[in-house]
Amino acid sequence: MKIDILSIFPEMFPGVLQSSILKKAADKGAVEYRVTDFREYASDKHKKVDDYPFGGGAGMVLKAQPIFDAVESLRASTTAKRPRVILMCPQGERYTQKKAEELSKEEHLIFICGHYEGYDERIREHIVTDELSIGDFVLTGGELASMVIVDSVVRLLPDVLGKVESHEQDSFSTGLLEHPHYTRPADFRGMKVPDVLLSGNHAHIEKWRSKEMLKRTWERRPDLFEGYSLTKEQEEWLQEIKKEDKRY
Amino acid sequence: MKIDILSIFPEMFPGVLQSSILKKAADKGAVEYRVTDFREYASDKHKKVDDYPFGGGAGMVLKAQPIFDAVESLRASTTAKRPRVILMCPQGERYTQKKAEELSKEEHLIFICGHYEGYDERIREHIVTDELSIGDFVLTGGELASMVIVDSVVRLLPDVLGKVESHEQDSFSTGLLEHPHYTRPADFRGMKVPDVLLSGNHAHIEKWRSKEMLKRTWERRPDLFEGYSLTKEQEEWLQEIKKEDKRY
Repeated sequence: MKIDILSIFPEMFPGVLQSSILKKAADKGAVEYRVTDFREYASDKHKKVDDYPFGGGAGMVLKAQPIFDAVESLRASTTAKRPRVILMCPQGERYTQKKAEELSKEEHLIFICGHYEGYDERIREHIVTDELSIGDFVLTGGELASMVIVDSVVRLLPDVLGKVESHEQDSFSTGLLEHPHYTRPADFRGMKVPDVLLSGNHAHIEKWRSKEMLKRTWERRPDLFEGYSLTKEQEEWLQEIKKEDKRY
Repeated sequence: MKIDILSIFPEMFPGVLQSSILKKAADKGAVEYRVTDFREYASDKHKKVDDYPFGGGAGMVLKAQPIFDAVESLRASTTAKRPRVILMCPQGERYTQKKAEELSKEEHLIFICGHYEGYDERIREHIVTDELSIGDFVLTGGELASMVIVDSVVRLLPDVLGKVESHEQDSFSTGLLEHPHYTRPADFRGMKVPDVLLSGNHAHIEKWRSKEMLKRTWERRPDLFEGYSLTKEQEEWLQEIKKEDKRY
């Protein structure tokens, strides 16, 4: 996979792209990153990438020309047929794990990161294939949002994660939240691990974990039960959990 | 504000914290960042920060000891009374702009970033004040999620944003999505700016923008209308927009 990032703050990226799994993925040849300062493409003699909005108002608007020229140049430099051109913006489609899986099957992703400005609408209409938002909060630019997407996509590429980091056990992959985890020591400053986890009885441990998954999901994300089919046993446990819940 | 970040990948942070608005905020003295590799606090002679889960299963679990000792040491080093200790995890409360505003009023934030492991439950129970998630997608670690939160919080601190970047005009601040923006040239490769924006008639421009905000919100995020009080005029425009929408 080829990943292109367009940003006027290219210095934000190397520390992230050259650490941990993102670095490992590049070292293995699973992905190739390229960060481009689109200011280099500005035809204006002062290399200006933004200008005042037509119709007045506060804030600056990112010009169409540098983005169009940069995207066209990046497209021309690969053999990938139809890159996804992704605009990071708060009005975009909410990014989810499903979208991560979809994007992980592409050959070429191009991310456009604006920085505290709006985008000229012609960029959205004519060059962008996807507008994505990572959540209902405001960032100073699209850079961090694009890194989040790159991270979640690259870890899904074949052979990137080893067995230890396997994404089989991911949150959301079962449809429910994870049960609590504990590791040594069994007693840390008087705080103890639940007895069942030390019992060696695997049937009991499995039952405890299944119940805790239901309990945590009920307490924190009951919306996840929508569209999830509970077994008869899970249904009974969930009824018990609801009874014990002091909020009811 | 003091911001502490605990991570075993400290090299991911400088590029982000030393760019753009996050750098400006530190230069102005509005915020002080400190990134700590919590591996330094591991009492184990091999500086191990994770271990196998009690009860069996795949994946490694972050040990309680290095995190407890690191957080206690960071707390002792400031005069802030009660720091918020924030655990980045997919099971956490969904992060929103409202939470950003709440956190921006704190004196001291400590972020704990795990990396593809679970956390020993005792960390959650005894040391953490907030568990936050930026969305329903899986990241290789909490680092990028913590940067997202730092970015969205720091830009809200007093005097950090100048007039140009003002957050008065932010997405979500009006409760609806933004209208389209355009800047020069009025004709870019045959793609033209709507005539009304070139008219100089401010009443017409305002009306067009208000309608476009409603239209974009209707098309992309109709959920935002819940709890939003439309004026009578907006209500009429919305009815028109719904009629014109070909999907209905």
